[in-house]
Amino acid sequence: MEALTELVESLPDGVVVTDPATLENYRYDWSRDTGAGTPVAVVRAEDAGQVQTAVRWAASYGVPVVPRGAGSGLSGGASAVDGGIVLSLERMRAIEIDADCQVAVVEPGAFNAEVKVASREHGLWYPPDPSSYEICSIGGNVATNAGGLCCVKYGVTTDYVLGLDVVLADGTLVTLGGKRIKDVAGLSLVKLFVGSEGTLGIVTRAILRLVPMPLPAATLVASFASVVAAAEAVVAVRRTLRPSMMELMDRATINAVEDFAPRGLDRSAGALLVVQSDAPGDARTAEIATVEAACEAAGATEIVVTDDPEEGELFVAARRAAFPAVEARGALLLEDVGAAVPLLPDLLAAVAEIAERHDVEIPTVAHAGDGNTHPIIVYTPGDADSERRARAAFDDILQAAIRLGGTITGEHGVGRTKKAALPDQLGADVMVLTRKIKDALDPDGILNPGAVL
Amino acid sequence: MEALTELVESLPDGVVVTDPATLENYRYDWSRDTGAGTPVAVVRAEDAGQVQTAVRWAASYGVPVVPRGAGSGLSGGASAVDGGIVLSLERMRAIEIDADCQVAVVEPGAFNAEVKVASREHGLWYPPDPSSYEICSIGGNVATNAGGLCCVKYGVTTDYVLGLDVVLADGTLVTLGGKRIKDVAGLSLVKLFVGSEGTLGIVTRAILRLVPMPLPAATLVASFASVVAAAEAVVAVRRTLRPSMMELMDRATINAVEDFAPRGLDRSAGALLVVQSDAPGDARTAEIATVEAACEAAGATEIVVTDDPEEGELFVAARRAAFPAVEARGALLLEDVGAAVPLLPDLLAAVAEIAERHDVEIPTVAHAGDGNTHPIIVYTPGDADSERRARAAFDDILQAAIRLGGTITGEHGVGRTKKAALPDQLGADVMVLTRKIKDALDPDGILNPGAVL
Ligand SMILES: Cc1cc2nc3c(=O)[nH]c(=O)nc-3n(C[C@H](O)[C@H](O)[C@H](O)COP(=O)(O)OP(=O)(O)OC[C@H]3O[C@@H](n4cnc5c(N)ncnc54)[C@H](O)[C@@H]3O)c2cc1C
Ligand SMILES: Cc1cc2nc3c(=O)[nH]c(=O)nc-3n(C[C@H](O)[C@H](O)[C@H](O)COP(=O)(O)OP(=O)(O)OC[C@H]3O[C@@H](n4cnc5c(N)ncnc54)[C@H](O)[C@@H]3O)c2cc1C
Repeated sequence: MEALTELVESLPDGVVVTDPATLENYRYDWSRDTGAGTPVAVVRAEDAGQVQTAVRWAASYGVPVVPRGAGSGLSGGASAVDGGIVLSLERMRAIEIDADCQVAVVEPGAFNAEVKVASREHGLWYPPDPSSYEICSIGGNVATNAGGLCCVKYGVTTDYVLGLDVVLADGTLVTLGGKRIKDVAGLSLVKLFVGSEGTLGIVTRAILRLVPMPLPAATLVASFASVVAAAEAVVAVRRTLRPSMMELMDRATINAVEDFAPRGLDRSAGALLVVQSDAPGDARTAEIATVEAACEAAGATEIVVTDDPEEGELFVAARRAAFPAVEARGALLLEDVGAAVPLLPDLLAAVAEIAERHDVEIPTVAHAGDGNTHPIIVYTPGDADSERRARAAFDDILQAAIRLGGTITGEHGVGRTKKAALPDQLGADVMVLTRKIKDALDPDGILNPGAVL
Repeated sequence: MEALTELVESLPDGVVVTDPATLENYRYDWSRDTGAGTPVAVVRAEDAGQVQTAVRWAASYGVPVVPRGAGSGLSGGASAVDGGIVLSLERMRAIEIDADCQVAVVEPGAFNAEVKVASREHGLWYPPDPSSYEICSIGGNVATNAGGLCCVKYGVTTDYVLGLDVVLADGTLVTLGGKRIKDVAGLSLVKLFVGSEGTLGIVTRAILRLVPMPLPAATLVASFASVVAAAEAVVAVRRTLRPSMMELMDRATINAVEDFAPRGLDRSAGALLVVQSDAPGDARTAEIATVEAACEAAGATEIVVTDDPEEGELFVAARRAAFPAVEARGALLLEDVGAAVPLLPDLLAAVAEIAERHDVEIPTVAHAGDGNTHPIIVYTPGDADSERRARAAFDDILQAAIRLGGTITGEHGVGRTKKAALPDQLGADVMVLTRKIKDALDPDGILNPGAVL
């Protein structure tokens, strides 16, 4: 393939990789999307100029480009495309902290955790914290508008992106936004690229807003007889409070996590809520008391409160371990459905009904304070009937969320695995509008084709 | 004009107005942009269907449509266009509070203050608070991504918009987003329309996020010998804190406000900072103490602290009166330049230098905690030389902001008055990108032509 030789020769040694073993490693993200193809090459760019070179080459030959961060995505957004290239940003990881401006200037391949560490050295904090923060890149976070555990109080990725460098489909590099906090000059282009899942451009640099370090949090863990009772406590708390964390685990998840790495969680509980407050001084005590009262009113069977950050972190780590722990039980289809907070009990009840109807195991965790849930559908790989039932449950859960006026994806992105349901949520007119923007920015459709649209 | 008759007849009596006196009333926004034209009709729509009818009519005849909220805009964004229609949303003002979901579902003509009042009845708060909150509409706030006084802690309009109904250039009505807090299904279209200044579509409904009422604030007022000293106190405070308000007034503004409605401000001060903290309990006292120490270190000549919300509100009201007060001194050219917070002293020093160089009076106020300043250039209407010097100063201030890596507009929008400088800030490639999106959504350019682009 002559074109490929041209690409290899236009970039420094080792940037373009074509050996089959490497190509295989870059086919999947964490969802192991069964539709993933095999790329002709992986480009491991070292700087924005190399990204431009690769995209210009792809544009001239009409070759698909799949941008890839750390591959921790849960929706097949970074699945390789047959005949395309994977454009990996993993080598671009510089992080520069401007402590005066309270921003981090970050290359896209840097891990979320690395930005947090670099910021902490200056007494600053980058809040967005997907559970995967130790294994996901800032570029992927920006492309998916990643959420996490602290979002109920601190917001999601888009709230922290002040500026972006983006390589467009024709290879042009644009610089959007900057270190200033408020800026309404021109269209909200930074915000448009956040959450665009690699379909509009490739992020080569991000300017991220930092905030002062939060205070140590107090933690409350409450057990409930059922997920719906726990969800009702969440609804009650959210009427008056935004705690700094409000996570839910159901019984199946608790048991999977205990099997995976025992921490002494109450295996008999129907659901656990893990709630934190990092409010200052006496306000923290008051917030925790409010949460405690709401949990009691909703029928909590046990409540533990601790001011010790390390003890609190044990529970949070248990919550973060949910996906890997459940994965040990079989193959997974991961959901990310959400609804307005007061509809959380209905959404969780719908998931339970679907699990029963299709006879599938669906452990569920949730960023409950935001109404964002992760039903994790478990099936037996190789068992066609088990897989069929799992897929039916997957589709039914998406439709249940839509029926509740909710969303098919609160933070993981549409990618390829949830694409079929997107028109059901958005409607035909919004799909047309979306297509107009995609066509305007990427007329030949080379950027992440098959994702989202 | 036959086409116009068709428009009049397609809408209920009184919706389309064509008498010259009314047309004159809808030519200008608060900036009294000298380039404003005269419309052929004003359409005062009563619902989204009427907006669609008017836009479809305009699309079929290629007639320009200028969306208009309350006309309090400061950048000529709602200036009428010769031969076009003004599409006024002032009659669409329904407000519905969903207290459980903590959202307000609002028609675009409702005033910001009306949303605040309706929310308060449910113990809820809509934070964004432009100084004009009693005379500006939610549609205008969304279209400009309006800021205000509380933004330093609570963010700007885009942070509170969960959903929008928008009538597109071909008359299609799309519903974007909804009551759920987290949603990444598809492109970030809600965010794209926020701040688009009526150039991409007409907002006919907004779903706004509400939060629990804030606690009563403590207020600190500090006097400084110079604006630069005051700005240095701001930079120091912002290193560790996000107070709930941090406003700056220079000597000329203080005196204009005192002339307008005396409140006993210190006329001899070079600058005043008005800072509030609404942190809970003892944290409020601690925050105010931190601010006090920073002001003293920056050389404050006098510091007053009060826990009495009514006394505090007197100072805030003085700050809010700045534009009307200065307007009493002559005609105004209003700036809205911003920079990263640590560059605030440089930006203010540049403004002072420009005022001196062009021999123009430029009272300055600032949402200082965000690095967003409003130099108010005063000139004598009818005096050609005074006007020429004012315009030269206006342009120089825009360029000074750009040189500091800042923005020509932090919250008022580009509109028509700052359009010429937009390419200098964004650069040619970003202008091309902007144009692609505009052309994709409004190929015939009927929506607010001449604004922004
Ligand atoms: C155990 C586990 C827990 C998780 N928990 C959370 C959670 O709490 N919250 C959450 O939001 N997500 C969570 N995720 C999902 C995932 O980590 C996030 O979606 C993350 O943002 C993906 O980052 P990545 O670098 O791995 O991206 P990838 O998987 O490599 O790519 C994700 C998407 O972004 C695009 N992309 C990547 N880099 C760029 C770039 N530089 N420019 C343009 N497009 C790009 C890709 O094309 C793809 O569409 C979890 C994942 C795992 C495995
Ligand atoms: C005394 C004073 C103080 C001010 N203080 C502040 C401040 O602190 N912060 C701040 O941000 N602004 C401030 N402003 C500016 C102004 O109030 C804001 O820009 C406000 O958002 C404009 O709202 P409006 O309804 O008056 O809009 P208009 O002036 O009618 O229009 C503004 C822009 O929005 C577009 N538009 C209006 N409605 C719609 C709609 N429904 N759909 C699509 N486009 C629409 C118009 O075409 C125009 O481009 C101040 C103004 C004054 C007079």
